[in-house]
Amino acid sequence: EVVYHVQDLFRAKFLSGYQVLVTAGPTREEIDPVRFISNRSSGRMGYAIAQAAQAAGAQVTLISGPVALSPLTGVQLVSVYSAQEMLAAVMTQVATVDIFIATAAVADYRPSQPLGHKFKKHEAHWQITLERTPDILATVASLPHPPFTVGFAAETDNLIEYARAKLQLKKLDMIVANPVGIAGIGFDSEENELSILWAEDSIELPRAAKTELAKQLLEVIIQRYQKSGRLTP
Amino acid sequence: EVVYHVQDLFRAKFLSGYQVLVTAGPTREEIDPVRFISNRSSGRMGYAIAQAAQAAGAQVTLISGPVALSPLTGVQLVSVYSAQEMLAAVMTQVATVDIFIATAAVADYRPSQPLGHKFKKHEAHWQITLERTPDILATVASLPHPPFTVGFAAETDNLIEYARAKLQLKKLDMIVANPVGIAGIGFDSEENELSILWAEDSIELPRAAKTELAKQLLEVIIQRYQKSGRLTP
Repeated sequence: EVVYHVQDLFRAKFLSGYQVLVTAGPTREEIDPVRFISNRSSGRMGYAIAQAAQAAGAQVTLISGPVALSPLTGVQLVSVYSAQEMLAAVMTQVATVDIFIATAAVADYRPSQPLGHKFKKHEAHWQITLERTPDILATVASLPHPPFTVGFAAETDNLIEYARAKLQLKKLDMIVANPVGIAGIGFDSEENELSILWAEDSIELPRAAKTELAKQLLEVIIQRYQKSGRLTP
Repeated sequence: EVVYHVQDLFRAKFLSGYQVLVTAGPTREEIDPVRFISNRSSGRMGYAIAQAAQAAGAQVTLISGPVALSPLTGVQLVSVYSAQEMLAAVMTQVATVDIFIATAAVADYRPSQPLGHKFKKHEAHWQITLERTPDILATVASLPHPPFTVGFAAETDNLIEYARAKLQLKKLDMIVANPVGIAGIGFDSEENELSILWAEDSIELPRAAKTELAKQLLEVIIQRYQKSGRLTP
């Protein structure tokens, strides 16, 4: 049973002495020097979680794709562009991290052969071949000594089913299911609603401002982290 | 010969009584409800031109793709997403417009068959077929009574050659050549350098802040507009 005593958590600086790594925003995958493939992530949820973790006393690093948000006071910001760059930044940081919260909407496909010059339009049609990007979340979760790893699943259909499959397949400690394609919540919105799943159970966080949800989510993460027996500092 | 008396131009509110339509920013073309194709345009050049035209006394409408810029005081903002939406917004406005300045980096290809649900990754490769978007600039310039029409050409290679070809092919009054792929200028930068071409001549505007270049460019546009004999109000 999860009881919300969010105020106490932040007053007690519960995460003092812990390192939290958060990824946020979209990535961009170049088609040519001008064009790219990306997605509708605004980065707001990730920035709100980084801010909440900092307020709870953690030392926070935020690895962010291209977003229109201001850097956060007291949070170390690492700006990246592509999935490949985000993976490299995460792997540089992860060895000393206690909790890894991967909110970024990492592109899972990128052009196989990005062009070195701007493609000139002539033909009526243009075929682009995409290949898979590296799986940052699975890479971290399969490390010999992974941090407590929290993933996000953003889906338009069969959200909970996909989220639970991703939790198991990638060996995550927790996954946050994030409905997209609903007006007013999810990508590019100020509000959201979340389902949080772990091996034994799940909990719903009803629709609220992303800043408020971030605090509630962090509360649940800390409770599960405590029970994981990995609370060492 | 072009003489810069930019201060006089703005003091005299030279464009008072004229309607100026500016497009700015990138467009986004949906692959599925989450993913899209876009480009690196920040919208800064277009917003600076809209601001300068408003300062010169014009009644300005700014049709903008998704950007991270604040609306401009005294400028009517129309927010759009895709090339198709931008075309519709332009055609709604264009009949009463005296000068049309198309700075937007409109996507020239879009997915032929956008998906209604988020594509689930399974395969190692994914082929996307793209089709041409409508050509907003050519559509406007080929109207029976077009406004004075200024296009932009953003290129990584053979910039001037492509720009002059585009000027002639699309029957523009003027084209602004915008080098991209050079660090510190062009897309996503505060500075730029421009070449302005018209049927008989051209002029170079050396590297400067986009706000300053916008004023100089507007000066050249007004001079050419005067000489075009279309200055009627």
